[in-house]
Amino acid sequence: MMKIDILSIFPEMFDGVLGHSILKKAADKQAVNYQIVNFREYADNRHQTVDDYPYGGGAGMVLKPQPIFDAVEDLMQKAVSKKPRVILMCPQGERYSQRKAEELSKEDHLIFICGHYEGYDERIREHLITEEISIGDYVLTGGELGAMVVIDSVVRLLPGVLGSEESHIQDSFSTGLLEHPHYTRPADFRGMKVPDVLLSGNHRLIEEWRVKESLRRTHTRRPDLFEDIDLPDEHQKWLSEIKKQDE
Amino acid sequence: MMKIDILSIFPEMFDGVLGHSILKKAADKQAVNYQIVNFREYADNRHQTVDDYPYGGGAGMVLKPQPIFDAVEDLMQKAVSKKPRVILMCPQGERYSQRKAEELSKEDHLIFICGHYEGYDERIREHLITEEISIGDYVLTGGELGAMVVIDSVVRLLPGVLGSEESHIQDSFSTGLLEHPHYTRPADFRGMKVPDVLLSGNHRLIEEWRVKESLRRTHTRRPDLFEDIDLPDEHQKWLSEIKKQDE
Repeated sequence: MMKIDILSIFPEMFDGVLGHSILKKAADKQAVNYQIVNFREYADNRHQTVDDYPYGGGAGMVLKPQPIFDAVEDLMQKAVSKKPRVILMCPQGERYSQRKAEELSKEDHLIFICGHYEGYDERIREHLITEEISIGDYVLTGGELGAMVVIDSVVRLLPGVLGSEESHIQDSFSTGLLEHPHYTRPADFRGMKVPDVLLSGNHRLIEEWRVKESLRRTHTRRPDLFEDIDLPDEHQKWLSEIKKQDE
Repeated sequence: MMKIDILSIFPEMFDGVLGHSILKKAADKQAVNYQIVNFREYADNRHQTVDDYPYGGGAGMVLKPQPIFDAVEDLMQKAVSKKPRVILMCPQGERYSQRKAEELSKEDHLIFICGHYEGYDERIREHLITEEISIGDYVLTGGELGAMVVIDSVVRLLPGVLGSEESHIQDSFSTGLLEHPHYTRPADFRGMKVPDVLLSGNHRLIEEWRVKESLRRTHTRRPDLFEDIDLPDEHQKWLSEIKKQDE
């Protein structure tokens, strides 16, 4: 069972996401155990302060090293795993990717540190954590949402978590290409029609249409994704035709 | 006041995030109004089914056009704004960025469509929405977390939402460079020390150290960010020195 500890001074933020959908199901199936730790409880000062003014002046507050060091060290002592990954959620971190999700899904114990508004004292970064993750190039008010995103993407990869129906979806990024279009009933919705080929019953033509649409969409929207894929010869030929049509 | 409607069949997932922290404060200050709409309620079939098998075969389910078209059209009719942005959360979408957050923060009305496991019927994409957003290159179980991420990044930009303390933070990506390191008390934590310059009281030197560390971190971790910035001559000189030290 994977153990996931989350350090946050807004523990209630996690209720809705961890308590529903796949993340809840995964906990029910004992594939994962979540623990939210309010690191304010580790603050050794009378007012349980977790932040303080920055050295050198300037606006904004900085998260103190003591409560976070003590909380992480306490969690490491209690854990069965020898070496948890200690992950700092921050915009300066490594850009999160499906490859990283797969890597983390093989671990026994993840500890997430979520700051809120404030910066982190640099000593946390230098001496406590194993890595920093950013989920994208945008500013969020805290690390909590980022941690939820990482946890969702990791937990769904754990064995037995997704049902067969869910896991059979040709996920974008796991195949390397963007997904082809999908259609379901009715065949005619207010005059908007499903492409004839999908109603033809000809499986070879349907498969060809899907691969071509997947290539077309990737070419139009995310041509950078082709850099990481070795296309079969036939698909390469189709892609050349798509590019020619585009000119 | 900005109006944000969210279409999801897992409305409870939003409780923790919308009910706490900045997103809650923003609603309390009447800067924004959230409404979660379970589009299952719009399904016109007896069992309130929102998905169906894909035309052309294959595993996985596809979200039907009818419930989502009807829900969005109902919300558009009820809204004061003339033209809401109708945003589909999906991995094939435009990669989300701080620039997009700033753009969306100027709108009156945002409608988010969140699928879960399933694909979307392509007619939703072609005829109903104004844009598709992906928060990053990784697979999530649904669009809900992506919508929360976009909402958090947009709402914190609305006038009056952030207090002066929070908003004065030199956010990564809003300056274009990654943030410099921060330190707070104690100056010596278990033998780990704060750099002398930050204790010097010399504001010119502190500022110079901060800019250099910001340049250094960006150079080491995200050199691609320099492509979008015009550095002042002095900073350009410092960056050249940093690069030379690195060789």
